[in-house]
Amino acid sequence: MSCDIAVYGLGVMGSNIALNFADHGLQVAVYNRTPSVTREFVDNLAADQAITACYSVEELIGALSTPRVVFLMAKAGRVVDLIIEQLGPLLEPGDILIDGGNSYFQDTQRRWTQLREQQIRYLGVGISGGEEGARHGPSIMPGGDPAAWPPVEDMFRRIAARADDGEPCCRWVGEGGAGHYVKMIHNGIEYGDMQLIAEAWQLMRDGLGMADDDIADTFTEWNRGPLSSYLVDITADILRVREADGSLRLDHILDAAGQKGTGRWTAADALETGVPLTLITEAVFARVLSSMKNERIAASARLGRAPVDAETDRAPLLAAIHDALYASKIISYAQGFLQMREAAGEHDWQLAFGDIALLWRAGCIIRSTFLDDIKRAFDRDPALPSLLFDDFFADALQQAEDGWREAVMLGIRQRIPLPAMSSALSFYDGYRSAVLPANLLQAQRDYFGAHTYRRIDRDQALAWHTHWTGDRAEVPVDE
Amino acid sequence: MSCDIAVYGLGVMGSNIALNFADHGLQVAVYNRTPSVTREFVDNLAADQAITACYSVEELIGALSTPRVVFLMAKAGRVVDLIIEQLGPLLEPGDILIDGGNSYFQDTQRRWTQLREQQIRYLGVGISGGEEGARHGPSIMPGGDPAAWPPVEDMFRRIAARADDGEPCCRWVGEGGAGHYVKMIHNGIEYGDMQLIAEAWQLMRDGLGMADDDIADTFTEWNRGPLSSYLVDITADILRVREADGSLRLDHILDAAGQKGTGRWTAADALETGVPLTLITEAVFARVLSSMKNERIAASARLGRAPVDAETDRAPLLAAIHDALYASKIISYAQGFLQMREAAGEHDWQLAFGDIALLWRAGCIIRSTFLDDIKRAFDRDPALPSLLFDDFFADALQQAEDGWREAVMLGIRQRIPLPAMSSALSFYDGYRSAVLPANLLQAQRDYFGAHTYRRIDRDQALAWHTHWTGDRAEVPVDE
Repeated sequence: MSCDIAVYGLGVMGSNIALNFADHGLQVAVYNRTPSVTREFVDNLAADQAITACYSVEELIGALSTPRVVFLMAKAGRVVDLIIEQLGPLLEPGDILIDGGNSYFQDTQRRWTQLREQQIRYLGVGISGGEEGARHGPSIMPGGDPAAWPPVEDMFRRIAARADDGEPCCRWVGEGGAGHYVKMIHNGIEYGDMQLIAEAWQLMRDGLGMADDDIADTFTEWNRGPLSSYLVDITADILRVREADGSLRLDHILDAAGQKGTGRWTAADALETGVPLTLITEAVFARVLSSMKNERIAASARLGRAPVDAETDRAPLLAAIHDALYASKIISYAQGFLQMREAAGEHDWQLAFGDIALLWRAGCIIRSTFLDDIKRAFDRDPALPSLLFDDFFADALQQAEDGWREAVMLGIRQRIPLPAMSSALSFYDGYRSAVLPANLLQAQRDYFGAHTYRRIDRDQALAWHTHWTGDRAEVPVDE
Repeated sequence: MSCDIAVYGLGVMGSNIALNFADHGLQVAVYNRTPSVTREFVDNLAADQAITACYSVEELIGALSTPRVVFLMAKAGRVVDLIIEQLGPLLEPGDILIDGGNSYFQDTQRRWTQLREQQIRYLGVGISGGEEGARHGPSIMPGGDPAAWPPVEDMFRRIAARADDGEPCCRWVGEGGAGHYVKMIHNGIEYGDMQLIAEAWQLMRDGLGMADDDIADTFTEWNRGPLSSYLVDITADILRVREADGSLRLDHILDAAGQKGTGRWTAADALETGVPLTLITEAVFARVLSSMKNERIAASARLGRAPVDAETDRAPLLAAIHDALYASKIISYAQGFLQMREAAGEHDWQLAFGDIALLWRAGCIIRSTFLDDIKRAFDRDPALPSLLFDDFFADALQQAEDGWREAVMLGIRQRIPLPAMSSALSFYDGYRSAVLPANLLQAQRDYFGAHTYRRIDRDQALAWHTHWTGDRAEVPVDE
């Protein structure tokens, strides 16, 4: 036997990826720690495929032609390290080990460094699109050892999602943990997109008193314009599913949002890297707050007020909500790309931002026409420092700006929490402020902690301190 | 010789703490890695004090009576571990080692566990108040080995700040890293308070077009009411310092705020612990954004608009700004105490929240009458789950609410970024919402990833999945 690729781990994602590889003419060997899972897979899901079932890792590795290519699909964390330990002695220099799970990029970075010493070529590959994507075409974000990519590139491009122009959503991202990093940012952006849609929905429902069907129709209509995206599309769908008694199924679903941690990673990395990723972070916190259901019910009893009447001037406010959603989305992506820009500098990755937008155009949860606009922005200027400097997005923001403000004020009047839309607006007003009141923070820090400050009218390499509580003299400070 | 305490590290903080101990009748031995620093200290600053200079660690440890008490004041991080390694062999079971620096609480937790094996009693003590506080009375937050506290409690209570009622701001916090944890939260709250004051300042200056002196007078007036605090007080002071040409010194200070990382730790811990700490996190990001000065100048040129005229209906808007500052501050502290509540559960700390408020009443940067109000709230109900459930704060919020909304809308109209005030308002409106639109997030997650959801009208232990793209049937899911 000489299989092209081994798939280690036959959970939903691993099974679907294995079937996807086999669909595309690859000889696939599979293995799962629990033999019955493997048997069940080849007897049922894979019954029509020429997939080789293996019941030991030795058998799995032995089934491969060289250089061997092993694709892991395991739970992120310690399990991956254990599997690497298990496979290490069976692999030879030049073999290729691929982690297709949702690993934290720093873990991938570490494993890549470690396996390099053994001359095993390691890839950390972000895969997005859920079960459906894994089966029929995910978005694929490969990173790791650049020498490992050319031998496997064709296999991955075959199974990847394809954009409307036929281009596979699979392109080399960068060294080390870069692929998993970009996948992490993708997931963070997904949190932001979802929170924004939820805010727009509440504005329509509670702020304007719109009926469910009207809201569903509105999302369908928006899905034909610049907001066209998978998430807007499924939202319209969800808003049309009713129970037997005619009520909306959505209204029966518990409003406590779960999370698996990748949004949190994104926000924590922003803090670490020093990037003002406000919107996604607010989206993460909004999920946390939603999960405090019992505390919210109690707080509502103590702090609630009689509801405000929905507003009646519907048409302009509905347009304003559209603009708020669109403008906030631009801010969210601008922040996410800003974070990738800083991370690239910090980790010495050569990220091609236009290519990253391409990767996300199909197969994944955040797929949208919006990503084509981003791709075009980076085509116009590959060195674009921020999406907000691109004419398309700058003009879009300036056109949406008044409506955006109206929508946020609607939320404030109607007591509708808009953590994502309002933090986006604060960011926008801050980002384009040549002067911010942070000089007061510096003065306070110098006052209580002698932290010194710079002056705008002198060489900014020089530090100054004022004797605030004394004669208020200003003195230069050697650092 | 038999000194009561050794101070290791004679930077500004260490020197001042040593002098403070000596002032209060303690026999102090001091040591610094660089001998000239030690000599300089005893010859100058400590010339009038009976402080024993030591030039080797052996000499320092030999100068102490038993059990020996060694107080470290070193840069947080690896340096502390190196000093512990250095001192370890010289210490005996029962000796007390105290880290008074700004250590990350997880490091303190680790060192405490490690030194317990050697039977060295370890304390991690948060000290706030800057140079001035260290010299004349800081706020002291001790944690670590409970058996180490009684022997040194008196020494620390002597040097601590005292509240107006004479009570020292020094009280046992909890085991392990609890003291440094509470200090971290203190610092996070400091970030929030400072950002809120900066936002109020900009609203007055740009939103209402007030003159600097009027703003200074306003802060002075506010300092007589519920906002009375050190930070409001020094802000009024700062707003009165002028250059020789009559311009405000503040206007010459570069608006790029620095940070030393403790605010970032607080926000990262909130993400990790799962607490919606939105305001402090926005304050941290606001500092990051302020430091992107050149990018902001460029963005201002591309995205700026002609300034809006300041608004003229000053009196009610000024009252609204006051209320926004007050209400947002309540939210910030409520979030901070929520985080301590969750951390106490996670780390098994018995935190007395009223005592923590007491610790912060004097000596530290966030000292304020507000902390007396918090103390009273926890006196009324030591098990209070959140400040927002206390009648005093709930009533205060409800009274401030309308003005708060007005002030945030003023910022939105005037294009003034209000990341902290507006995120606080979003949190408030979310926290007291019995129902949030997070059911849509759950439906979306179930749609694209089969993540399942709970239903409000059935046993919430059961998970459900809808075949959204198929027949829309709902099925129970075994977990």
